[in-house]
Amino acid sequence: MVTSRSLDALCGARLFFKCENLQRAGVFKARGAHNAVLALSDEEARGGVLTHSSGNHGAALALAARVRRIPAYIVVPENALPSKIDNIRRYGGRIEFCPPTLAAREAAAARIQSETGARLIHAYNDPWVIAGQGTAALELLEDHPDLDAIVAPVGGGGLLSGTAIAAKGLKPEISVLGAEPAGADDAARSLQAGRLMPQTNPRTLADGLRTSLGDLTFPLIRQQVDAIVTVSEAALGENMQLVWSILKLVIEPSSAVAVAAVFQAKESLQGKRVGVILSGGNVDLDRLPWIQRP
Amino acid sequence: MVTSRSLDALCGARLFFKCENLQRAGVFKARGAHNAVLALSDEEARGGVLTHSSGNHGAALALAARVRRIPAYIVVPENALPSKIDNIRRYGGRIEFCPPTLAAREAAAARIQSETGARLIHAYNDPWVIAGQGTAALELLEDHPDLDAIVAPVGGGGLLSGTAIAAKGLKPEISVLGAEPAGADDAARSLQAGRLMPQTNPRTLADGLRTSLGDLTFPLIRQQVDAIVTVSEAALGENMQLVWSILKLVIEPSSAVAVAAVFQAKESLQGKRVGVILSGGNVDLDRLPWIQRP
Repeated sequence: MVTSRSLDALCGARLFFKCENLQRAGVFKARGAHNAVLALSDEEARGGVLTHSSGNHGAALALAARVRRIPAYIVVPENALPSKIDNIRRYGGRIEFCPPTLAAREAAAARIQSETGARLIHAYNDPWVIAGQGTAALELLEDHPDLDAIVAPVGGGGLLSGTAIAAKGLKPEISVLGAEPAGADDAARSLQAGRLMPQTNPRTLADGLRTSLGDLTFPLIRQQVDAIVTVSEAALGENMQLVWSILKLVIEPSSAVAVAAVFQAKESLQGKRVGVILSGGNVDLDRLPWIQRP
Repeated sequence: MVTSRSLDALCGARLFFKCENLQRAGVFKARGAHNAVLALSDEEARGGVLTHSSGNHGAALALAARVRRIPAYIVVPENALPSKIDNIRRYGGRIEFCPPTLAAREAAAARIQSETGARLIHAYNDPWVIAGQGTAALELLEDHPDLDAIVAPVGGGGLLSGTAIAAKGLKPEISVLGAEPAGADDAARSLQAGRLMPQTNPRTLADGLRTSLGDLTFPLIRQQVDAIVTVSEAALGENMQLVWSILKLVIEPSSAVAVAAVFQAKESLQGKRVGVILSGGNVDLDRLPWIQRP
């Protein structure tokens, strides 16, 4: 938990940052992955676990599987970033490359499942994963029971739905806000339409938030989340740099979305005590949005 | 205090990072500046405080003066970086520009002193400042009394001499190592020569470590510090990036020198418990050593 008088003064609220960038594997996803893996019976765990993810969930699942001493098979598209692949390898994940299409990915996952008996652990559309992600908000409210609001980024909705369940369960009157980039705004559109509107062509720097809500996370968010704040792509880079320079914390673009949402909603948050989930810190240090490269 | 299994595995020691980058004003210098300002009698404090510094000490002194509600006059060379000037202004420091020469700087300081009665607070060659900087090591040893060694960067020597006094005072058998860049290695040369060898033409990215030891800090370091580890300029950029990517902490080049020293001295630190002072996080985010700009 980190606070900053400078940032508080800038936005007129009291901010309490939950630093999931300092979490193991550099991201909140370690929470959901551990919960899902540790909830398996010995029988269920025997064949290991499996997921398809080119990002943070793959690394987090590899770590959780290592903790339980079972294999983790991670299906990764051939065009994934080398830094993401390194993260999965660092935690002992067994990488299975596939062509970068949905069909190829599902075929690879089905093949591994039939060969190994590994259990598929979805990155967000899984009740154990959702419950695990909710523990960040649980800890936030244990430390600061007097929070008026919590802001969390929303991509597939695992973190946001878990946050809402934990926060409203402990404190029904708290506001829970989702923060979403304009370039991948399926949560805002789905809530407005009253049905799941998948994200087809996401265009955002926030690589953790390009996925669509799932059929488990959408209804939870619809029931429990007070509002989605949509932030511009420009605000995202600015707030990322702001956090790096004032909090001295390396956060990834997806986390900056939550900070940008606080500033965007600052009129309604004036004088409030606001928990902000800095979801992760896995960023390509060679490519920063504020530095033009040759 | 931050720890990392990944970094421990890389260097074969157990590292305990004291995060002075998360200190107020983003740097350990807030400790010495507060101690010096708060130690003044009301009579002494009446005219405010004064220093010449284009860097972190100026901002830290401005902050400490604001806490005491007295003015801080900071003499800054006309060619100082805008980001440094902004830092001083953010804390209410009164900036007095001067041409970038020693004579101009001293003339400006003398003029302000005679006009205002402000007390000069030197950035490191001051017993109150040295004592204040030592409180980082004091806290490190309060949290982890079983440390075998502490590593701190050395520029003017305020942090290193304060660290050594605090650490050896609490635990005489502890090793205290200074970390210095090869491009500004006056501490290593001074210890070898047995006399103060000023730094004439520093060439290092570690902008906080370009100064020479003072006549107060040199004898303290000579008496109390076990060794100076000299690190290459290349190691400095590498270790800065390593800390950003693994610890998710923004540290400045001067802090990376301490991490580089741990890796360089890793044979003698095998299996040891080592406190590492990450001295600060004030870095120009537009200019990072690992990114070639257009």
